[in-house]
Amino acid sequence: FQSIGGGWVEAQNSRGEVGLVPEDYIEVSYIVSVDVKSMEEISVSLLQATNGNDPWSAWNADPSGDSTNNWASNPEGTQTGKSAPDPWAPVSHGHPQAYQGPGAEDDEWDDEWDDMKSTGYAESEAGESGALQRGGSHATSMKISLNKFPGFSKSGPELYLLCKQLVKGKDRLPIYTGEVGPVWSYPEAQLDCVVADPKKGSKMYGLKSYIEYQVTPSTTNRPVNHRYKHFDWLYERLLEKFGSAIPIPSLPDKQVTGRFEEEFIKMRMERLQGWMTRMCRHPVISSSEVFQLFVTYKDEKDWKMGKRKAEKDETVGVMIFSTIEPEAPDLDLIEVEQKCEQFSRFTKSMDDGVKEILTVGHEHWKRCTGPLPKEYQRIGKAFQNLSSVFTSSGYQGESALTDAMTAAGKTYEEIAQLVAEQPKKDLHHLMETNNEYKGLLGCFPDTIGVHKAAIDKVKEGDKLVAASKITQQDKVTMAKRASTMSYALQAEMNHFHSNRIYDYNRVMQLYLEEQVKFYETIAAKLRQAHSQFTTM
Amino acid sequence: FQSIGGGWVEAQNSRGEVGLVPEDYIEVSYIVSVDVKSMEEISVSLLQATNGNDPWSAWNADPSGDSTNNWASNPEGTQTGKSAPDPWAPVSHGHPQAYQGPGAEDDEWDDEWDDMKSTGYAESEAGESGALQRGGSHATSMKISLNKFPGFSKSGPELYLLCKQLVKGKDRLPIYTGEVGPVWSYPEAQLDCVVADPKKGSKMYGLKSYIEYQVTPSTTNRPVNHRYKHFDWLYERLLEKFGSAIPIPSLPDKQVTGRFEEEFIKMRMERLQGWMTRMCRHPVISSSEVFQLFVTYKDEKDWKMGKRKAEKDETVGVMIFSTIEPEAPDLDLIEVEQKCEQFSRFTKSMDDGVKEILTVGHEHWKRCTGPLPKEYQRIGKAFQNLSSVFTSSGYQGESALTDAMTAAGKTYEEIAQLVAEQPKKDLHHLMETNNEYKGLLGCFPDTIGVHKAAIDKVKEGDKLVAASKITQQDKVTMAKRASTMSYALQAEMNHFHSNRIYDYNRVMQLYLEEQVKFYETIAAKLRQAHSQFTTM
Repeated sequence: FQSIGGGWVEAQNSRGEVGLVPEDYIEVSYIVSVDVKSMEEISVSLLQATNGNDPWSAWNADPSGDSTNNWASNPEGTQTGKSAPDPWAPVSHGHPQAYQGPGAEDDEWDDEWDDMKSTGYAESEAGESGALQRGGSHATSMKISLNKFPGFSKSGPELYLLCKQLVKGKDRLPIYTGEVGPVWSYPEAQLDCVVADPKKGSKMYGLKSYIEYQVTPSTTNRPVNHRYKHFDWLYERLLEKFGSAIPIPSLPDKQVTGRFEEEFIKMRMERLQGWMTRMCRHPVISSSEVFQLFVTYKDEKDWKMGKRKAEKDETVGVMIFSTIEPEAPDLDLIEVEQKCEQFSRFTKSMDDGVKEILTVGHEHWKRCTGPLPKEYQRIGKAFQNLSSVFTSSGYQGESALTDAMTAAGKTYEEIAQLVAEQPKKDLHHLMETNNEYKGLLGCFPDTIGVHKAAIDKVKEGDKLVAASKITQQDKVTMAKRASTMSYALQAEMNHFHSNRIYDYNRVMQLYLEEQVKFYETIAAKLRQAHSQFTTM
Repeated sequence: FQSIGGGWVEAQNSRGEVGLVPEDYIEVSYIVSVDVKSMEEISVSLLQATNGNDPWSAWNADPSGDSTNNWASNPEGTQTGKSAPDPWAPVSHGHPQAYQGPGAEDDEWDDEWDDMKSTGYAESEAGESGALQRGGSHATSMKISLNKFPGFSKSGPELYLLCKQLVKGKDRLPIYTGEVGPVWSYPEAQLDCVVADPKKGSKMYGLKSYIEYQVTPSTTNRPVNHRYKHFDWLYERLLEKFGSAIPIPSLPDKQVTGRFEEEFIKMRMERLQGWMTRMCRHPVISSSEVFQLFVTYKDEKDWKMGKRKAEKDETVGVMIFSTIEPEAPDLDLIEVEQKCEQFSRFTKSMDDGVKEILTVGHEHWKRCTGPLPKEYQRIGKAFQNLSSVFTSSGYQGESALTDAMTAAGKTYEEIAQLVAEQPKKDLHHLMETNNEYKGLLGCFPDTIGVHKAAIDKVKEGDKLVAASKITQQDKVTMAKRASTMSYALQAEMNHFHSNRIYDYNRVMQLYLEEQVKFYETIAAKLRQAHSQFTTM
C-alpha cells in the first residue's frame, strides 16, 4: 500500500486491479483479509439476499438455520466464536473499527464504509468486502460488549454481584410496583422523535457522499442532523450501557447496493424511525444522557464532547444493575429463577410465533405480487379477447355485451394491480412490526443469559463461602443483587408486554382495516362492472 | 368365449383373468381389440383425466393438442381415419353398436355399457375397455353419419345438390328474413324441459343398475323417464338428421368411475339439463318429430314405435337441406362463399377465445382450491398461534388483544373456506357455459366443411357441364341449392349469435354477481374481526 495523503492510499485488490482506497478501508481489509475468496462468496449471498422488491427476502436466505436450536443449545447466551450473520448466535468479537476513545475521533477515520462512493476502485469490491465486515459484526441483533469493561469476566455477572459500591444520585434507576408488578419509572410526557428529510451530503470534494437524516425530538422541536453511522454509534453506546438489562434492537441492516436509491432510503428511514420510536418509548433509554445528547446536542462541539464523555462511561455491561433501586422487598432465589424461566419460555415461544408470521407473510407477499395478479391479468385479458372476437361477429346489437365484457376484463386487470400493490399497504406493516419484534426477541437470549448466570453464581454461594472465595456477607449481597436484577428483568418484561400489546393491537387493526378496504374496493369495482351488463 | 345364457358370456382378459361379461361388451371388444395394451394406456389416461374434484381437469389432459392446427390443416372437415378423442378431428367410423333397425331393438342388447355393475369381473377392466370404446366414438363433438345414407358420397353434398325432388309439406323448414338477416321460424312459445329427479333403477335381478332421469316438457308438463342411453340415442338421431346444417353438441362425457356418486350424478344431470335446454331453444330441433317423441311419448309402445320410425328416417345428412325453404331471393356464389368464410373465421376465433377462458379458469380453479386457501389457513393459524403465546404471558389485561387476535385468525380460516368454495359458485358456471360453447364450436368445422364442399362443387359446374357429367340445368340447380344451404347456415349463425349474446350476458352477470358477494362477504368478515380490537 502506498499512502498518497489525505487519508487515501493506492491499493491493489485480489484481481490485481489498482485504485484509490481510504485508509480506514485498508484497516478493515487487514481484519478480514484472511480469506478473500470465501468472503466474496458470502458477500454475493448478502447481495442476493438484500436485492429485489421484497424487503423480507433476506429472511429466507438467512443461513442461521433453525433459531430454535440456538435457544436450546445456547440458552445462557455464552459467547461463541461463530461469526455467521445469525441474530441468535452471539459473537465474541466486538466492532473492530469502533470508537476507541478520542484518538479515533477523527471524522475521516471512523467514516462508515457505506458512505463511500466509487473512487475508481471497483465499487463492488470495496463495497462487498466492507459489507461482509460490517455485516458480520452487525448482523447479530445484540452484542453485549462486556470485554470493554476493564477486568470484566467473560463468564458472568460477578462484577456486579460482588461490587463494593452502588451508583447513587441522578443516575439511579428506580423500580416501582405498579398494577402489573415491577415497573420502570415512566416520564409524564413520552419523548417522541421524528426522523425525516433525508438529504444527500458529500465531503472530500465529492469523493465521499452520504445520507443525513433530520431527527426532531418532541421536547425541543429543534431538528438535529445524523448520519447512519451516528445512529450506529448511539446503538453501540446503548448496547454497552443497557444491554444486560434492556434488549437493544439492532439498527436496520446495512445494504450494499442501491443505497442511494429512493426506495432504499425511504425504507431505511422508516426503520430508523421505528427504532427511534422504540427507544423513545423506553423510559430508561430515552432519559439517558447519551440518548438525550443524540437528540438535543446544540452544536458540533457539544456533540463531540458528549461523545467523548459517553465513550468514557464506566457504568456499562452488568454494572447497569448497580444503578437500579427497586422499592419492593427482596425476592428469594426460587422466585427469581421462576420469573427468569417464565420470561425465557415466553420470549422463545413468541420468537417462534413471530417467525411463523414472517414466514407465512413472506409466502403471501410473494403470491400477492407474483402469480396471483398475473392470473387476474390473464382472466382480464381472456374476457377482453373474447369480447373482441364477439365484436368481429358482424351480428347486430352486440355492442351492449361486448362493451360490458371489455369493461369486466379491464376490471380484472385493475384487480390484478390492486392485488399486487396491496401488500405494501397492509402486509408491509404487519411484517415490519413482526420484524422489529424478531429483532427485539433476538436480544433476549443474551439478556436472560446474564440473569441465569447470576442465578447460577448465587446458587454456588455456599460452595464459594466454604472454599473461602467469598465471605458470608458477600453471599447475602449476591442474593440481594440477584433480586435487584430480577426486578429489572420484570420491569423490562412488563415494559415489553405493554408495548407488545399496544403494537400488536395497532398493527392488527391497521392490517384488518386495509384488508377491509382492499376487499371493499374490489367488490365495488366488480359491482360497477356488473352494472354494465344489460338485464334481459 | 363361452355363452352361459341370458346375454352373458364367460371371458378371459389380457391378464388371463376370467369373469362374466355381457355379450354386448364382447361385441365391443371385437371392434377395439386390436391393441389391448395401448387401449388400456389410453383408458388409464381417460380415468386420470376425469377423476378428481375439478370437472375440467380433462381439458388439460386432452391429447388433441392444438386444435388451431386442426382448423387450419383440415378446414373442410374431411373425414380422416384418426380415432383419437379429439373434438376437432372428424372420425370415419360411426357407432359400432348403434341402432341397426328393429333387429337391434332388444333392450338387453343395446344396453349402455356404463349402466353395468361389477359382476365378479374386475370392474376396472371391463370399465376401462368400455370407456375407451365409448370414449373413442363419443369424444368427437359431432360426427355426421353420412355413411348410413344409401349411396351417399363421402366427398360431399352432391346428393342434395343434384337430387331430383325437394321435401314438401309439414317437414319443410322455412327461413324468413328478420332484422338480423335470415332466421329460422321461431315458435310463439319456447319449449322448455326440466331434467330432474335422478333415480337408481336395476334389472336382471340387480346385476344391471342405471340412473333414470325425469324429463318434463313445459308443453305437456307430464314427466317422461329417460336413461343416459336414451339421451344418447336422441343425440345420434339429431346428429344424423340435422348435423349438416345445425351444430349438435355432444352429450356430457361418459365417466368410468364413481358414476353412482352423488356429485357425478348431479353434474351429469346439470349437463344433460344444459344440453336439453339448448336443444329446446333451437326452433328446428325442438319442433322435430324425434325430439317431440323423446319428450312427450305416451307409453312404452309409443316410444318403441317412434324409435323405429325415427331410425328409418331418410331425410338425414345433407338431405336436410332439401327441406329448407328460404323466402328470399337466391344468393350468388361469391356472397355464399363470403358468408361461409366469415362464419369459419368467427367460429375459429371464438373457439380460441373460449379455450383461453377455459385454460385460465382451470388455472384459477386450481389456485382457488389449492394453494390460496392453504395460505389463508396458515395466516389464520399464525395469528392464532401468536395469540395463544400472548395468552401464556402471565401479563394482566391481555385478553382483549388475544381474543381479538384469535377471532382474526379464525376469520382467515373462514376466508380460506370461502376461497376454496367460491369456484363452485361462480367460476363453475362460467366454465360450464364456455365448455358448452367449446362443444358447440367443435361442431362447426364439420358443418362448415359441408358448405365449403358444396361451394367447391358449384365452382366445378362449368367443368362438369363441359365433361357432360351434368347438364346446364343441373348447374343452375346446384347454384340455387348452394344458396339455400347458405341461407340455412346464416339462419343457424344468427341463431347461434343470439343465443351466444344471451348466454354470455347471463353467465357474466352471474359470475360478477357472485364475485361481488364473495368479496363483500370477506370484507364484512374482516370488518367484524377488526371491530373486536379495542381502540387505544
